[in-house]
Amino acid sequence: MSGVGGDVLERWNACGWYQTTAMQVLSADDTGARFRMEVGAGHLQAYGTAHGGSLAGLLDAAMGLAAIAQVDPDEGCATVEMKINYTAAVPPGEVFAEGTVITLGRRIVVARAEATLPTGRVAAVAMGTFTRFREQ
Amino acid sequence: MSGVGGDVLERWNACGWYQTTAMQVLSADDTGARFRMEVGAGHLQAYGTAHGGSLAGLLDAAMGLAAIAQVDPDEGCATVEMKINYTAAVPPGEVFAEGTVITLGRRIVVARAEATLPTGRVAAVAMGTFTRFREQ
Amino acid sequence: MSGVGGDVLERWNACGWYQTTAMQVLSADDTGARFRMEVGAGHLQAYGTAHGGSLAGLLDAAMGLAAIAQVDPDEGCATVEMKINYTAAVPPGEVFAEGTVITLGRRIVVARAEATLPTGRVAAVAMGTFTRFREQ
Amino acid sequence: MSGVGGDVLERWNACGWYQTTAMQVLSADDTGARFRMEVGAGHLQAYGTAHGGSLAGLLDAAMGLAAIAQVDPDEGCATVEMKINYTAAVPPGEVFAEGTVITLGRRIVVARAEATLPTGRVAAVAMGTFTRFREQ
Repeated sequence: MSGVGGDVLERWNACGWYQTTAMQVLSADDTGARFRMEVGAGHLQAYGTAHGGSLAGLLDAAMGLAAIAQVDPDEGCATVEMKINYTAAVPPGEVFAEGTVITLGRRIVVARAEATLPTGRVAAVAMGTFTRFREQ
Repeated sequence: MSGVGGDVLERWNACGWYQTTAMQVLSADDTGARFRMEVGAGHLQAYGTAHGGSLAGLLDAAMGLAAIAQVDPDEGCATVEMKINYTAAVPPGEVFAEGTVITLGRRIVVARAEATLPTGRVAAVAMGTFTRFREQ
Repeated sequence: MSGVGGDVLERWNACGWYQTTAMQVLSADDTGARFRMEVGAGHLQAYGTAHGGSLAGLLDAAMGLAAIAQVDPDEGCATVEMKINYTAAVPPGEVFAEGTVITLGRRIVVARAEATLPTGRVAAVAMGTFTRFREQ
Repeated sequence: MSGVGGDVLERWNACGWYQTTAMQVLSADDTGARFRMEVGAGHLQAYGTAHGGSLAGLLDAAMGLAAIAQVDPDEGCATVEMKINYTAAVPPGEVFAEGTVITLGRRIVVARAEATLPTGRVAAVAMGTFTRFREQ
Protein backbone atom coordinates (compact mmCIF):
# COMPACT_ATOMS: atom_id res chain seq x y z
CA MET A 1 0.00 0.00 0.00
CA SER A 2 1.64 3.21 -1.19
CA GLY A 3 0.56 6.42 0.47
CA VAL A 4 0.51 9.99 -0.78
CA GLY A 5 3.45 11.75 0.83
CA GLY A 6 3.03 14.32 3.57
CA ASP A 7 4.31 17.02 1.22
CA VAL A 8 1.43 16.44 -1.20
CA LEU A 9 -1.10 16.45 1.63
CA GLU A 10 0.43 19.67 2.99
CA ARG A 11 0.26 21.27 -0.45
CA TRP A 12 -3.41 20.32 -0.83
CA ASN A 13 -4.31 21.33 2.71
CA ALA A 14 -2.68 24.72 2.16
CA CYS A 15 -4.97 25.56 -0.79
CA GLY A 16 -7.19 28.60 -0.49
CA TRP A 17 -10.32 26.53 -0.99
CA TYR A 18 -9.41 24.12 1.80
CA GLN A 19 -8.84 27.01 4.17
CA THR A 20 -12.04 28.74 3.09
CA THR A 21 -14.19 25.67 3.61
CA ALA A 22 -12.34 24.26 6.65
CA MET A 23 -11.66 21.08 4.71
CA GLN A 24 -8.69 18.86 5.33
CA VAL A 25 -7.14 15.72 3.82
CA LEU A 26 -6.58 13.19 6.59
CA SER A 27 -4.88 10.52 4.49
CA ALA A 28 -4.64 9.25 0.93
CA ASP A 29 -3.27 5.98 -0.38
CA ASP A 30 -4.20 3.37 -2.95
CA THR A 31 -7.26 2.35 -0.93
CA GLY A 32 -8.72 5.86 -1.13
CA ALA A 33 -8.62 9.37 0.32
CA ARG A 34 -10.17 10.44 3.60
CA PHE A 35 -11.26 14.02 4.35
CA ARG A 36 -12.84 15.98 7.15
CA MET A 37 -14.73 19.28 6.94
CA GLU A 38 -15.89 21.48 9.79
CA VAL A 39 -19.20 23.04 8.78
CA GLY A 40 -19.62 26.50 10.28
CA ALA A 41 -21.71 29.62 9.70
CA GLY A 42 -19.80 30.29 6.49
CA HIS A 43 -21.06 27.06 4.89
CA LEU A 44 -24.78 27.67 5.33
CA GLN A 45 -27.45 28.23 2.68
CA ALA A 46 -30.81 29.94 3.14
CA TYR A 47 -32.30 26.97 5.01
CA GLY A 48 -29.60 26.80 7.70
CA THR A 49 -27.67 23.69 6.66
CA ALA A 50 -24.49 23.23 4.63
CA HIS A 51 -24.70 24.53 1.04
CA GLY A 52 -24.46 21.82 -1.59
CA GLY A 53 -21.38 23.52 -3.04
CA SER A 54 -19.39 22.81 0.11
CA LEU A 55 -20.24 19.11 -0.10
CA ALA A 56 -19.61 18.98 -3.84
CA GLY A 57 -16.18 20.49 -3.20
CA LEU A 58 -15.48 17.98 -0.45
CA LEU A 59 -16.43 14.96 -2.56
CA ASP A 60 -14.68 16.32 -5.67
CA ALA A 61 -11.51 16.64 -3.60
CA ALA A 62 -11.89 13.19 -2.05
CA MET A 63 -12.25 11.61 -5.48
CA GLY A 64 -9.46 13.71 -6.97
CA LEU A 65 -6.96 12.81 -4.28
CA ALA A 66 -7.91 9.13 -4.43
CA ALA A 67 -7.06 9.37 -8.15
CA ILE A 68 -3.79 11.26 -7.48
CA ALA A 69 -2.78 8.48 -5.09
CA GLN A 70 -2.93 5.96 -7.92
CA VAL A 71 -1.37 7.74 -10.89
CA ASP A 72 2.36 8.31 -11.44
CA PRO A 73 4.08 10.71 -9.02
CA ASP A 74 4.57 13.36 -11.75
CA GLU A 75 0.94 13.26 -12.83
CA GLY A 76 -1.99 15.40 -11.76
CA CYS A 77 -5.71 14.76 -12.20
CA ALA A 78 -8.35 17.25 -13.33
CA THR A 79 -12.08 16.88 -12.77
CA VAL A 80 -13.87 16.50 -16.08
CA GLU A 81 -17.28 16.18 -14.46
CA MET A 82 -19.00 14.95 -11.34
CA LYS A 83 -22.48 14.18 -10.10
CA ILE A 84 -23.68 14.29 -6.54
CA ASN A 85 -26.81 13.13 -4.71
CA TYR A 86 -27.68 14.87 -1.44
CA THR A 87 -29.21 12.38 0.97
CA ALA A 88 -29.30 14.18 4.33
CA ALA A 89 -29.02 17.79 5.49
CA VAL A 90 -25.64 18.61 7.04
CA PRO A 91 -25.87 20.78 10.17
CA PRO A 92 -22.95 22.77 11.60
CA GLY A 93 -20.26 20.42 12.93
CA GLU A 94 -18.06 17.72 11.44
CA VAL A 95 -18.64 15.84 8.22
CA PHE A 96 -16.34 13.16 6.86
CA ALA A 97 -15.70 11.95 3.32
CA GLU A 98 -13.99 9.07 1.63
CA GLY A 99 -13.14 8.85 -2.06
CA THR A 100 -12.18 5.67 -3.93
CA VAL A 101 -11.11 4.89 -7.47
CA ILE A 102 -13.48 2.66 -9.44
CA THR A 103 -11.40 2.28 -12.61
CA LEU A 104 -7.95 3.60 -13.44
CA GLY A 105 -7.58 4.01 -17.19
CA ARG A 106 -4.59 5.24 -19.15
CA ARG A 107 -6.25 8.61 -19.68
CA ILE A 108 -9.46 8.56 -17.65
CA VAL A 109 -10.02 7.75 -13.98
CA VAL A 110 -13.52 7.10 -12.61
CA ALA A 111 -14.06 7.52 -8.89
CA ARG A 112 -16.79 7.66 -6.29
CA ALA A 113 -17.07 9.29 -2.88
CA GLU A 114 -19.37 9.38 0.10
CA ALA A 115 -19.87 12.01 2.82
CA THR A 116 -21.02 10.84 6.24
CA LEU A 117 -22.21 12.58 9.37
CA PRO A 118 -20.63 11.67 12.73
CA THR A 119 -23.72 9.48 13.32
CA GLY A 120 -22.71 7.39 10.32
CA ARG A 121 -25.62 8.65 8.23
CA VAL A 122 -24.80 9.12 4.54
CA ALA A 123 -25.12 12.82 3.68
CA ALA A 124 -24.07 12.74 0.03
CA VAL A 125 -22.72 10.38 -2.61
CA ALA A 126 -20.83 11.29 -5.76
CA MET A 127 -19.31 9.78 -8.86
CA GLY A 128 -16.81 11.60 -11.06
CA THR A 129 -14.57 11.48 -14.12
CA PHE A 130 -10.97 12.69 -14.07
CA THR A 131 -8.26 13.09 -16.71
CA ARG A 132 -4.61 12.35 -15.98
CA PHE A 133 -2.02 14.94 -17.05
CA ARG A 134 1.72 15.44 -16.64
CA GLU A 135 2.63 18.29 -14.34
CA GLN A 136 5.36 20.56 -15.77
CA MET B 1 -42.90 38.15 -16.01
CA SER B 2 -42.90 37.83 -12.25
CA GLY B 3 -39.66 38.44 -10.44
CA VAL B 4 -38.32 37.21 -7.13
CA GLY B 5 -38.71 40.04 -4.64
CA GLY B 6 -35.78 42.02 -3.31
CA ASP B 7 -36.37 40.55 0.15
CA VAL B 8 -35.78 37.00 -1.10
CA LEU B 9 -32.63 38.08 -2.97
CA GLU B 10 -31.39 39.85 0.16
CA ARG B 11 -32.03 36.77 2.27
CA TRP B 12 -30.13 34.57 -0.16
CA ASN B 13 -27.28 37.04 -0.58
CA ALA B 14 -26.91 37.24 3.20
CA CYS B 15 -26.23 33.47 3.52
CA GLY B 16 -22.93 32.39 4.98
CA TRP B 17 -22.01 30.43 1.87
CA TYR B 18 -22.64 33.44 -0.40
CA GLN B 19 -20.41 35.59 1.76
CA THR B 20 -17.73 32.90 1.97
CA THR B 21 -17.58 32.38 -1.78
CA ALA B 22 -18.20 36.00 -2.83
CA MET B 23 -21.27 34.87 -4.74
CA GLN B 24 -24.26 37.07 -5.39
CA VAL B 25 -27.71 36.77 -6.96
CA LEU B 26 -28.13 39.54 -9.51
CA SER B 27 -31.72 38.79 -10.47
CA ALA B 28 -34.25 35.98 -10.59
CA ASP B 29 -37.54 35.75 -12.40
CA ASP B 30 -39.47 33.21 -14.43
CA THR B 31 -36.90 33.37 -17.23
CA GLY B 32 -34.12 32.24 -14.88
CA ALA B 33 -31.65 33.36 -12.22
CA ARG B 34 -28.45 35.27 -12.81
CA PHE B 35 -25.43 35.16 -10.48
CA ARG B 36 -21.95 36.62 -10.21
CA MET B 37 -18.99 35.26 -8.25
CA GLU B 38 -15.65 36.95 -7.62
CA VAL B 39 -12.97 34.27 -7.61
CA GLY B 40 -10.13 35.15 -5.23
CA ALA B 41 -7.30 33.39 -3.41
CA GLY B 42 -9.82 31.64 -1.18
CA HIS B 43 -11.38 29.79 -4.13
CA LEU B 44 -8.21 28.18 -5.47
CA GLN B 45 -7.26 24.50 -5.60
CA ALA B 46 -3.76 23.01 -5.86
CA TYR B 47 -3.39 23.99 -9.54
CA GLY B 48 -4.14 27.69 -9.02
CA THR B 49 -7.62 28.01 -10.51
CA ALA B 50 -11.08 27.96 -8.92
CA HIS B 51 -11.93 24.74 -7.08
CA GLY B 52 -14.76 22.75 -8.63
CA GLY B 53 -16.73 23.06 -5.41
CA SER B 54 -17.03 26.82 -5.83
CA LEU B 55 -18.49 26.38 -9.32
CA ALA B 56 -20.75 23.54 -8.24
CA GLY B 57 -22.09 25.81 -5.49
CA LEU B 58 -22.61 28.63 -7.95
CA LEU B 59 -24.53 26.51 -10.46
CA ASP B 60 -26.51 24.71 -7.74
CA ALA B 61 -27.62 28.12 -6.47
CA ALA B 62 -28.43 29.42 -9.95
CA MET B 63 -30.63 26.39 -10.64
CA GLY B 64 -32.19 26.49 -7.20
CA LEU B 65 -33.17 30.12 -7.42
CA ALA B 66 -34.50 29.68 -10.95
CA ALA B 67 -36.72 26.97 -9.46
CA ILE B 68 -37.74 29.15 -6.48
CA ALA B 69 -38.79 31.85 -8.93
CA GLN B 70 -41.36 29.51 -10.48
CA VAL B 71 -42.91 27.71 -7.52
CA ASP B 72 -45.51 29.18 -5.15
CA PRO B 73 -44.35 32.02 -2.87
CA ASP B 74 -44.58 29.82 0.24
CA GLU B 75 -42.56 27.00 -1.28
CA GLY B 76 -38.87 26.27 -1.09
CA CYS B 77 -36.76 23.98 -3.27
CA ALA B 78 -34.11 21.50 -2.13
CA THR B 79 -31.41 20.04 -4.34
CA VAL B 80 -31.90 16.30 -4.71
CA GLU B 81 -28.88 15.90 -6.97
CA MET B 82 -26.84 17.71 -9.57
CA LYS B 83 -24.20 16.96 -12.17
CA ILE B 84 -21.60 19.36 -13.50
CA ASN B 85 -19.12 19.34 -16.38
CA TYR B 86 -16.08 21.58 -16.10
CA THR B 87 -15.15 22.94 -19.50
CA ALA B 88 -12.56 25.66 -18.82
CA ALA B 89 -10.33 26.59 -15.91
CA VAL B 90 -11.55 29.65 -13.99
CA PRO B 91 -8.78 32.07 -12.99
CA PRO B 92 -9.14 34.72 -10.28
CA GLY B 93 -11.66 37.39 -11.32
CA GLU B 94 -15.33 37.40 -12.22
CA VAL B 95 -17.42 34.48 -13.33
CA PHE B 96 -21.11 34.66 -14.19
CA ALA B 97 -23.85 32.06 -14.07
CA GLU B 98 -27.37 31.64 -15.32
CA GLY B 99 -29.82 28.97 -14.25
CA THR B 100 -33.06 28.07 -16.02
CA VAL B 101 -35.90 25.66 -15.34
CA ILE B 102 -36.31 22.85 -17.88
CA THR B 103 -39.47 21.26 -16.46
CA LEU B 104 -41.62 22.30 -13.53
CA GLY B 105 -43.41 19.29 -12.08
CA ARG B 106 -45.81 19.15 -9.17
CA ARG B 107 -43.14 17.65 -6.95
CA ILE B 108 -39.91 17.68 -9.00
CA VAL B 109 -38.23 20.55 -10.84
CA VAL B 110 -35.44 19.90 -13.36
CA ALA B 111 -33.10 22.78 -14.15
CA ARG B 112 -29.87 23.54 -15.93
CA ALA B 113 -27.20 26.20 -15.50
CA GLU B 114 -24.12 27.53 -17.22
CA ALA B 115 -21.10 29.44 -15.87
CA THR B 116 -19.30 31.79 -18.21
CA LEU B 117 -16.06 33.74 -18.05
CA PRO B 118 -16.10 37.48 -18.87
CA THR B 119 -14.77 36.47 -22.33
CA GLY B 120 -17.99 34.56 -22.91
CA ARG B 121 -16.25 31.18 -22.72
CA VAL B 122 -18.32 28.45 -21.06
CA ALA B 123 -16.55 27.36 -17.86
CA ALA B 124 -19.05 24.82 -16.56
CA VAL B 125 -22.49 23.40 -17.29
CA ALA B 126 -24.82 21.67 -14.88
CA MET B 127 -28.15 19.90 -14.70
CA GLY B 128 -30.01 19.26 -11.45
CA THR B 129 -33.10 17.86 -9.78
CA PHE B 130 -35.00 19.72 -7.07
CA THR B 131 -37.96 18.89 -4.82
CA ARG B 132 -40.58 21.46 -3.89
CA PHE B 133 -41.56 21.77 -0.24
CA ARG B 134 -43.78 24.07 1.85
CA GLU B 135 -41.86 26.35 4.17
CA GLN B 136 -43.30 26.44 7.70
CA MET C 1 -33.69 -11.02 4.28
CA SER C 2 -36.89 -10.57 2.31
CA GLY C 3 -36.80 -11.37 -1.38
CA VAL C 4 -38.87 -10.08 -4.26
CA GLY C 5 -41.41 -12.78 -5.10
CA GLY C 6 -41.18 -14.91 -8.20
CA ASP C 7 -44.34 -13.28 -9.55
CA VAL C 8 -42.71 -9.83 -9.54
CA LEU C 9 -39.59 -11.21 -11.23
CA GLU C 10 -41.75 -12.93 -13.84
CA ARG C 11 -43.68 -9.74 -14.47
CA TRP C 12 -40.45 -7.76 -14.95
CA ASN C 13 -38.81 -10.44 -17.07
CA ALA C 14 -41.89 -10.54 -19.32
CA CYS C 15 -41.57 -6.82 -20.22
CA GLY C 16 -41.07 -5.92 -23.86
CA TRP C 17 -37.78 -4.17 -23.09
CA TYR C 18 -36.37 -7.19 -21.29
CA GLN C 19 -37.21 -9.41 -24.23
CA THR C 20 -35.85 -6.91 -26.73
CA THR C 21 -32.52 -6.54 -24.97
CA ALA C 22 -32.18 -10.16 -23.74
CA MET C 23 -32.04 -8.88 -20.18
CA GLN C 24 -33.19 -10.91 -17.20
CA VAL C 25 -33.58 -10.41 -13.44
CA LEU C 26 -31.79 -13.24 -11.66
CA SER C 27 -32.76 -12.28 -8.12
CA ALA C 28 -33.74 -9.29 -6.01
CA ASP C 29 -33.86 -8.91 -2.26
CA ASP C 30 -32.93 -6.33 0.33
CA THR C 31 -29.21 -6.78 -0.43
CA GLY C 32 -29.72 -5.76 -4.07
CA ALA C 33 -30.84 -6.93 -7.50
CA ARG C 34 -28.84 -9.09 -9.87
CA PHE C 35 -29.27 -9.09 -13.65
CA ARG C 36 -27.83 -10.78 -16.70
CA MET C 37 -27.90 -9.56 -20.32
CA GLU C 38 -26.86 -11.46 -23.42
CA VAL C 39 -25.31 -8.97 -25.82
CA GLY C 40 -25.97 -9.97 -29.44
CA ALA C 41 -25.94 -8.34 -32.88
CA GLY C 42 -29.01 -6.31 -31.94
CA HIS C 43 -27.16 -4.48 -29.17
CA LEU C 44 -24.27 -3.15 -31.27
CA GLN C 45 -23.43 0.45 -32.14
CA ALA C 46 -21.32 1.67 -35.07
CA TYR C 47 -18.05 0.52 -33.45
CA GLY C 48 -19.10 -3.11 -32.93
CA THR C 49 -19.64 -3.22 -29.17
CA ALA C 50 -22.77 -2.86 -27.02
CA HIS C 51 -24.57 0.47 -27.37
CA GLY C 52 -24.54 2.58 -24.23
CA GLY C 53 -28.33 2.55 -24.19
CA SER C 54 -28.40 -1.19 -23.57
CA LEU C 55 -26.11 -0.80 -20.55
CA ALA C 56 -28.00 2.24 -19.29
CA GLY C 57 -31.19 0.19 -19.45
CA LEU C 58 -29.55 -2.71 -17.63
CA LEU C 59 -28.24 -0.55 -14.79
CA ASP C 60 -31.45 1.49 -14.56
CA ALA C 61 -33.35 -1.78 -14.12
CA ALA C 62 -30.86 -3.16 -11.59
CA MET C 63 -31.19 0.00 -9.48
CA GLY C 64 -34.95 0.14 -9.90
CA LEU C 65 -35.52 -3.41 -8.80
CA ALA C 66 -33.13 -3.03 -5.86
CA ALA C 67 -35.36 -0.12 -4.85
CA ILE C 68 -38.58 -2.09 -5.41
CA ALA C 69 -37.21 -4.82 -3.14
CA GLN C 70 -37.03 -2.35 -0.26
CA VAL C 71 -40.24 -0.35 -0.51
CA ASP C 72 -43.68 -1.53 0.57
CA PRO C 73 -45.24 -4.35 -1.49
CA ASP C 74 -47.87 -2.03 -2.98
CA GLU C 75 -45.34 0.60 -4.03
CA GLY C 76 -43.57 1.07 -7.32
CA CYS C 77 -40.45 3.13 -8.11
CA ALA C 78 -39.92 5.45 -11.06
CA THR C 79 -36.53 6.62 -12.30
CA VAL C 80 -36.21 10.38 -11.84
CA GLU C 81 -32.71 10.48 -13.28
CA MET C 82 -29.55 8.42 -13.60
CA LYS C 83 -25.92 8.88 -14.57
CA ILE C 84 -23.64 6.26 -16.02
CA ASN C 85 -19.90 6.00 -16.64
CA TYR C 86 -18.73 3.56 -19.31
CA THR C 87 -15.44 2.01 -18.29
CA ALA C 88 -14.89 -0.87 -20.75
CA ALA C 89 -16.31 -1.84 -24.13
CA VAL C 90 -18.80 -4.71 -23.94
CA PRO C 91 -18.39 -7.30 -26.74
CA PRO C 92 -21.09 -9.80 -27.71
CA GLY C 93 -21.66 -12.32 -24.92
CA GLU C 94 -22.78 -12.13 -21.32
CA VAL C 95 -22.70 -9.08 -19.08
CA PHE C 96 -23.85 -9.06 -15.47
CA ALA C 97 -25.18 -6.26 -13.28
CA GLU C 98 -25.89 -5.66 -9.65
CA GLY C 99 -27.86 -2.78 -8.20
CA THR C 100 -27.94 -1.71 -4.56
CA VAL C 101 -29.80 0.92 -2.58
CA ILE C 102 -27.65 3.65 -1.03
CA THR C 103 -30.37 5.48 0.88
CA LEU C 104 -34.05 4.72 1.25
CA GLY C 105 -35.99 7.90 1.95
CA ARG C 106 -39.70 8.34 2.50
CA ARG C 107 -40.12 9.74 -0.99
CA ILE C 108 -36.74 9.39 -2.70
CA VAL C 109 -34.50 6.34 -3.10
CA VAL C 110 -30.87 6.69 -4.20
CA ALA C 111 -29.18 3.63 -5.70
CA ARG C 112 -26.06 2.58 -7.51
CA ALA C 113 -25.25 -0.25 -9.91
CA GLU C 114 -22.30 -1.85 -11.62
CA ALA C 115 -22.05 -3.90 -14.81
CA THR C 116 -19.27 -6.47 -15.07
CA LEU C 117 -17.90 -8.65 -17.83
CA PRO C 118 -17.47 -12.40 -17.24
CA THR C 119 -13.76 -11.62 -16.63
CA GLY C 120 -14.78 -9.49 -13.65
CA ARG C 121 -13.83 -6.26 -15.38
CA VAL C 122 -16.12 -3.32 -14.56
CA ALA C 123 -17.88 -2.25 -17.76
CA ALA C 124 -20.09 0.52 -16.41
CA VAL C 125 -21.12 2.14 -13.13
CA ALA C 126 -24.26 4.12 -12.44
CA MET C 127 -25.99 6.12 -9.75
CA GLY C 128 -29.67 7.03 -9.86
CA THR C 129 -32.60 8.72 -8.15
CA PHE C 130 -36.02 7.08 -7.84
CA THR C 131 -39.40 8.21 -6.49
CA ARG C 132 -41.71 5.88 -4.61
CA PHE C 133 -45.38 5.77 -5.63
CA ARG C 134 -48.45 3.72 -4.72
CA GLU C 135 -49.60 1.39 -7.48
CA GLN C 136 -53.36 1.50 -8.09
CA MET D 1 -22.82 24.62 -42.26
CA SER D 2 -21.18 21.26 -42.93
CA GLY D 3 -23.35 18.18 -42.70
CA VAL D 4 -22.55 14.59 -41.86
CA GLY D 5 -22.57 12.67 -45.16
CA GLY D 6 -25.32 10.25 -46.12
CA ASP D 7 -22.84 7.36 -45.90
CA VAL D 8 -22.18 8.04 -42.20
CA LEU D 9 -25.92 8.32 -41.50
CA GLU D 10 -26.53 5.05 -43.36
CA ARG D 11 -23.78 3.33 -41.40
CA TRP D 12 -25.26 4.50 -38.09
CA ASN D 13 -28.83 3.71 -39.08
CA ALA D 14 -27.74 0.18 -40.06
CA CYS D 15 -26.45 -0.60 -36.53
CA GLY D 16 -28.04 -3.46 -34.66
CA TRP D 17 -29.08 -1.20 -31.82
CA TYR D 18 -30.84 1.25 -34.15
CA GLN D 19 -32.78 -1.58 -35.73
CA THR D 20 -33.62 -3.11 -32.36
CA THR D 21 -34.94 0.11 -30.91
CA ALA D 22 -36.51 1.53 -34.10
CA MET D 23 -34.27 4.56 -33.81
CA GLN D 24 -33.12 6.59 -36.77
CA VAL D 25 -30.83 9.56 -37.44
CA LEU D 26 -32.73 12.15 -39.43
CA SER D 27 -29.87 14.61 -39.93
CA ALA D 28 -26.61 15.72 -38.37
CA ASP D 29 -24.57 18.83 -38.99
CA ASP D 30 -22.66 21.41 -36.98
CA THR D 31 -25.89 22.71 -35.45
CA GLY D 32 -26.68 19.28 -33.94
CA ALA D 33 -28.14 15.86 -34.63
CA ARG D 34 -31.81 15.02 -34.95
CA PHE D 35 -33.28 11.57 -34.26
CA ARG D 36 -36.62 9.82 -34.27
CA MET D 37 -37.63 6.65 -32.41
CA GLU D 38 -40.83 4.65 -32.79
CA VAL D 39 -41.76 3.31 -29.37
CA GLY D 40 -43.51 -0.06 -29.65
CA ALA D 41 -44.29 -3.05 -27.44
CA GLY D 42 -40.61 -3.99 -27.39
CA HIS D 43 -39.66 -0.73 -25.62
CA LEU D 44 -41.97 -1.08 -22.64
CA GLN D 45 -41.13 -1.57 -18.99
CA ALA D 46 -43.33 -2.98 -16.24
CA TYR D 47 -45.49 0.16 -16.06
CA GLY D 48 -46.39 0.22 -19.77
CA THR D 49 -44.31 3.15 -21.02
CA ALA D 50 -40.89 3.31 -22.70
CA HIS D 51 -38.04 1.90 -20.62
CA GLY D 52 -35.46 4.47 -19.58
CA GLY D 53 -32.77 2.50 -21.40
CA SER D 54 -34.40 3.20 -24.75
CA LEU D 55 -34.40 6.95 -24.07
CA ALA D 56 -30.87 6.87 -22.69
CA GLY D 57 -29.76 5.15 -25.89
CA LEU D 58 -31.59 7.71 -28.00
CA LEU D 59 -30.04 10.71 -26.23
CA ASP D 60 -26.59 9.11 -26.07
CA ALA D 61 -26.76 8.64 -29.85
CA ALA D 62 -28.05 12.18 -30.45
CA MET D 63 -25.17 13.65 -28.44
CA GLY D 64 -22.62 11.31 -29.99
CA LEU D 65 -23.59 12.12 -33.53
CA ALA D 66 -23.70 15.85 -32.79
CA ALA D 67 -20.09 15.40 -31.61
CA ILE D 68 -19.12 13.32 -34.67
CA ALA D 69 -20.45 16.12 -36.88
CA GLN D 70 -17.93 18.55 -35.39
CA VAL D 71 -14.71 16.54 -35.13
CA ASP D 72 -12.39 15.69 -38.03
CA PRO D 73 -13.76 13.27 -40.65
CA ASP D 74 -11.36 10.49 -39.57
CA GLU D 75 -12.26 10.81 -35.90
CA GLY D 76 -14.81 8.91 -33.87
CA CYS D 77 -16.31 9.78 -30.47
CA ALA D 78 -16.86 7.44 -27.54
CA THR D 79 -19.23 8.09 -24.66
CA VAL D 80 -17.27 8.47 -21.42
CA GLU D 81 -20.39 9.09 -19.34
CA MET D 82 -23.84 10.56 -19.53
CA LYS D 83 -26.63 11.62 -17.20
CA ILE D 84 -30.31 11.74 -18.01
CA ASN D 85 -33.41 13.17 -16.32
CA TYR D 86 -36.75 11.64 -17.20
CA THR D 87 -39.43 14.32 -17.22
CA ALA D 88 -42.48 12.66 -18.79
CA ALA D 89 -43.58 9.09 -19.48
CA VAL D 90 -43.25 8.09 -23.15
CA PRO D 91 -46.20 6.07 -24.47
CA PRO D 92 -46.06 3.95 -27.62
CA GLY D 93 -45.67 6.16 -30.70
CA GLU D 94 -43.09 8.63 -31.93
CA VAL D 95 -40.50 10.41 -29.86
CA PHE D 96 -37.96 12.88 -31.24
CA ALA D 97 -34.51 13.89 -30.02
CA GLU D 98 -32.00 16.59 -30.70
CA GLY D 99 -28.38 16.60 -29.55
CA THR D 100 -26.07 19.62 -29.55
CA VAL D 101 -22.43 20.20 -28.68
CA ILE D 102 -21.80 22.51 -25.72
CA THR D 103 -18.00 22.61 -25.87
CA LEU D 104 -15.61 21.04 -28.36
CA GLY D 105 -12.24 20.43 -26.73
CA ARG D 106 -9.12 18.92 -28.25
CA ARG D 107 -9.75 15.66 -26.43
CA ILE D 108 -13.12 16.02 -24.71
CA VAL D 109 -16.50 17.02 -26.14
CA VAL D 110 -19.40 17.96 -23.87
CA ALA D 111 -22.90 17.73 -25.32
CA ARG D 112 -26.54 17.87 -24.31
CA ALA D 113 -29.71 16.40 -25.76
CA GLU D 114 -33.45 16.58 -25.32
CA ALA D 115 -36.21 14.12 -26.18
CA THR D 116 -39.66 15.48 -27.00
CA LEU D 117 -43.06 13.96 -27.51
CA PRO D 118 -45.07 14.89 -30.63
CA THR D 119 -47.01 17.31 -28.39
CA GLY D 120 -43.77 19.21 -27.77
CA ARG D 121 -43.56 18.08 -24.17
CA VAL D 122 -40.00 17.41 -22.94
CA ALA D 123 -39.71 13.71 -22.08
CA ALA D 124 -36.02 13.56 -21.11
CA VAL D 125 -32.90 15.73 -21.01
CA ALA D 126 -29.31 14.56 -20.97
CA MET D 127 -25.76 15.84 -20.74
CA GLY D 128 -22.73 13.76 -21.67
CA THR D 129 -18.96 13.61 -22.03
CA PHE D 130 -17.25 12.15 -25.09
CA THR D 131 -13.63 11.46 -26.04
CA ARG D 132 -12.34 11.96 -29.56
CA PHE D 133 -10.27 9.17 -31.13
CA ARG D 134 -8.75 8.43 -34.54
CA GLU D 135 -10.43 5.59 -36.39
CA GLN D 136 -7.95 3.12 -37.94
